[in-house]
Amino acid sequence: MTWDVVVVGAGLSGLAAARAVAAEGRSVVVVEARDRVGGRTEGGTLEDGQWVELGGQWVGPTQDRMYALLAELGLRTVPTWNDGDIVFGLGRRTGRLAGRKGAVPRLNPVALADLAQGVTRFGRLARRTDLDAPWATPGADRLDGQTLATWVRRNLRTPQARAYFELYSEAVLACQPADVSLLHALFYTRSGTDMDTLMAVDRGAQQDRVEGGSVLVSQRMAEELDVRLGRPVAAVVQDAAGVDVVTRDGDRFRGSRVVVTLPPTLAGRLRYEPLLPSRRDQLTQKLPAGSVIKVYAVYPRPFWRDEGLNGQAGSDRGPVKVVFDNTPPGYDRGILMGFLEGAAAREWSARSPAQRRTAVVECLVRYFGPQAADPVEYVERDWTAEEFTRGCYGAHFAPGVWTGFGDALREPVGRIHWAGAECSPVWNGYMEGAVLSGEATAREVLGLL
Amino acid sequence: MTWDVVVVGAGLSGLAAARAVAAEGRSVVVVEARDRVGGRTEGGTLEDGQWVELGGQWVGPTQDRMYALLAELGLRTVPTWNDGDIVFGLGRRTGRLAGRKGAVPRLNPVALADLAQGVTRFGRLARRTDLDAPWATPGADRLDGQTLATWVRRNLRTPQARAYFELYSEAVLACQPADVSLLHALFYTRSGTDMDTLMAVDRGAQQDRVEGGSVLVSQRMAEELDVRLGRPVAAVVQDAAGVDVVTRDGDRFRGSRVVVTLPPTLAGRLRYEPLLPSRRDQLTQKLPAGSVIKVYAVYPRPFWRDEGLNGQAGSDRGPVKVVFDNTPPGYDRGILMGFLEGAAAREWSARSPAQRRTAVVECLVRYFGPQAADPVEYVERDWTAEEFTRGCYGAHFAPGVWTGFGDALREPVGRIHWAGAECSPVWNGYMEGAVLSGEATAREVLGLL
Repeated sequence: MTWDVVVVGAGLSGLAAARAVAAEGRSVVVVEARDRVGGRTEGGTLEDGQWVELGGQWVGPTQDRMYALLAELGLRTVPTWNDGDIVFGLGRRTGRLAGRKGAVPRLNPVALADLAQGVTRFGRLARRTDLDAPWATPGADRLDGQTLATWVRRNLRTPQARAYFELYSEAVLACQPADVSLLHALFYTRSGTDMDTLMAVDRGAQQDRVEGGSVLVSQRMAEELDVRLGRPVAAVVQDAAGVDVVTRDGDRFRGSRVVVTLPPTLAGRLRYEPLLPSRRDQLTQKLPAGSVIKVYAVYPRPFWRDEGLNGQAGSDRGPVKVVFDNTPPGYDRGILMGFLEGAAAREWSARSPAQRRTAVVECLVRYFGPQAADPVEYVERDWTAEEFTRGCYGAHFAPGVWTGFGDALREPVGRIHWAGAECSPVWNGYMEGAVLSGEATAREVLGLL
Repeated sequence: MTWDVVVVGAGLSGLAAARAVAAEGRSVVVVEARDRVGGRTEGGTLEDGQWVELGGQWVGPTQDRMYALLAELGLRTVPTWNDGDIVFGLGRRTGRLAGRKGAVPRLNPVALADLAQGVTRFGRLARRTDLDAPWATPGADRLDGQTLATWVRRNLRTPQARAYFELYSEAVLACQPADVSLLHALFYTRSGTDMDTLMAVDRGAQQDRVEGGSVLVSQRMAEELDVRLGRPVAAVVQDAAGVDVVTRDGDRFRGSRVVVTLPPTLAGRLRYEPLLPSRRDQLTQKLPAGSVIKVYAVYPRPFWRDEGLNGQAGSDRGPVKVVFDNTPPGYDRGILMGFLEGAAAREWSARSPAQRRTAVVECLVRYFGPQAADPVEYVERDWTAEEFTRGCYGAHFAPGVWTGFGDALREPVGRIHWAGAECSPVWNGYMEGAVLSGEATAREVLGLL
């Protein structure tokens, strides 16, 4: 049996690609390593049956394709809880911060002025990046020749403002400012509009959730597709007439074209015959995934709301540096959800679940008081430990990678085409980017069938 | 059948490890993907039967283990040809440079003073690096938070001095200054003594060659070992009692311990059961190989010697930026050997062999005059295109990698131990480092059997 298109990976990008191919009447099969669809979105269930999301979960304004797709699939959004004050602290002191503007912390006037000029300057640079070809951005060599850490050291003076940018790097890129090229940080920021949008709930990237859980998007798409679960791909073998996707067990799925939607570091681990060109192989050697552990603590009630808190916290102390109230509407218990990101995730991935739980709860007590000390349930997902992801949220580009190898990111290799959240100029790294990239690559492939 | 130790990779490191294990009376097998031993050292043969080296070839002072090993194996060294003047140019002008001191180009006084202060300052920083634990170097976070490119921009003023550091990065690390952390550049420099030693022929890293070719070291070691060629390893599977090395074809080599000596980016592509810890996996996501194409042009005679030239060239123009006279003693023809490194290798890897030959010969004519226009033979090896290497000379560490993940480089994972040129504190990336690392890991394993 052969198909017009074989898609590797049943995450949002692969399913969106397959759906677009099928919509044109072409045959398509999706080959997936896991026994579930969704990739970096994953559904979970609390002990009482309540759905939670173990991976990506938010949509927000300007993510037009996601909102349209949700409507097509008969799914609805619910707003992220955002009523009350934020707990926010930089410089290792944490306090209550009034209002909804999570992106602007309360600081002393000097630090605030420093942060404001830094955000303005960074934003001005970000707006100049070429989203389709970051390496063609004016001054790209210089921007890509330095780390975000170098830029922060040079352009921000106060420890608090520097800490805010570090928190931004961790929360948005899931890596430290030293790990990432300034050009990539600028590209990623513009790709998701701007710093405020990326950090905000209302009118930002954390505004809405999918009722029932974001994995429903993948599940609904998969319902009308031929998806083969539990089949880790080992090799992609091209010949003059077609291309075989070969699983670890030796099953072969033959197509006219293949779309590989794995995160770059995993795409680079497949065996390719003939070998990939050097620049493509060396590109995936240089696209590591970030580090994220997502944690949940469930309480009898959302007690923080009684005190006028919205359940959100941000702090540079950690190890949980960002927290949200993830209680769905109509659920009577209270759910706090947080992230260990970047260096914190690296450190805590090596500890036991019990040690992580203790550290997480200590953080929540610091943010929300002694009532946070006794969650009735604790759930976590360490995305760095997932064989078929090996890190989240997405790949980050170290210095020199965009300018040295960037054009190999989406360039097809014979019958092999690439898609995924990392391949999207717009909302790179987000669910929106994954879907956009899958659909764009489907169009590319359809034009060649 | 089972062995005390199974070694993955029959390069210098793997063979040295196996030899050390066998010397203690323990059983050991070496499983190698290629149909030859030697890894990043490889023997080649010209049309007339003359041996050449397609990979690593030099030994030099302070590489004591290599000289001792050569003696043990009955091998002799011959000096690299070094009589005459060098052709050297920075700032895109190339001229003749008298004397043997290849490391110090002739420049205008301002550029020379700038370069001298830069080399001194860089050397002072390099001497402070902790070779065993680069992340423990004083100020490591700051040194590892910036690229070498950032340091060069800040500490050198003239285009020529900056060009020299770029050439150093290309020639020694096989990557651009933007690709690599300052801390790594400092570590690597101290690991190989200092900048002068790394760039020099006499009293430097390019001083001597192995008579008959450096691959003889591996071949001699292999003669007394059980080496299984043509068996690419796909997986390493540990259980309570031992560890299985599983080849692509499903052959299993079971041992009490395994030593994986592959370059990090290839070690990271194997499948491990149980999964590797997150920090180890994320480390190998972040250790890309450099980019090198080694080229040979053979002439009826070493004509450059007639004009008092030693056959060496260095220039920032390229694409061949470094050239040596690789004519072995007693050979009547003349051999020029050069490298395309870093960005040049990336660009030229995508071209045809004929295009590369034309570009290489044009370079040689620029350096050595019209007599270089008609080589009787042209030979090349693109190490980025090698399935079982995927880049040379070794891995480079981007910013944040040493400080964020460095201690996972040599840390064993259960029954799996790591070795290779990248694992050595001393002469990291060189044949000496490969052998030292293999032997050190063998001692580690022997202590646990």
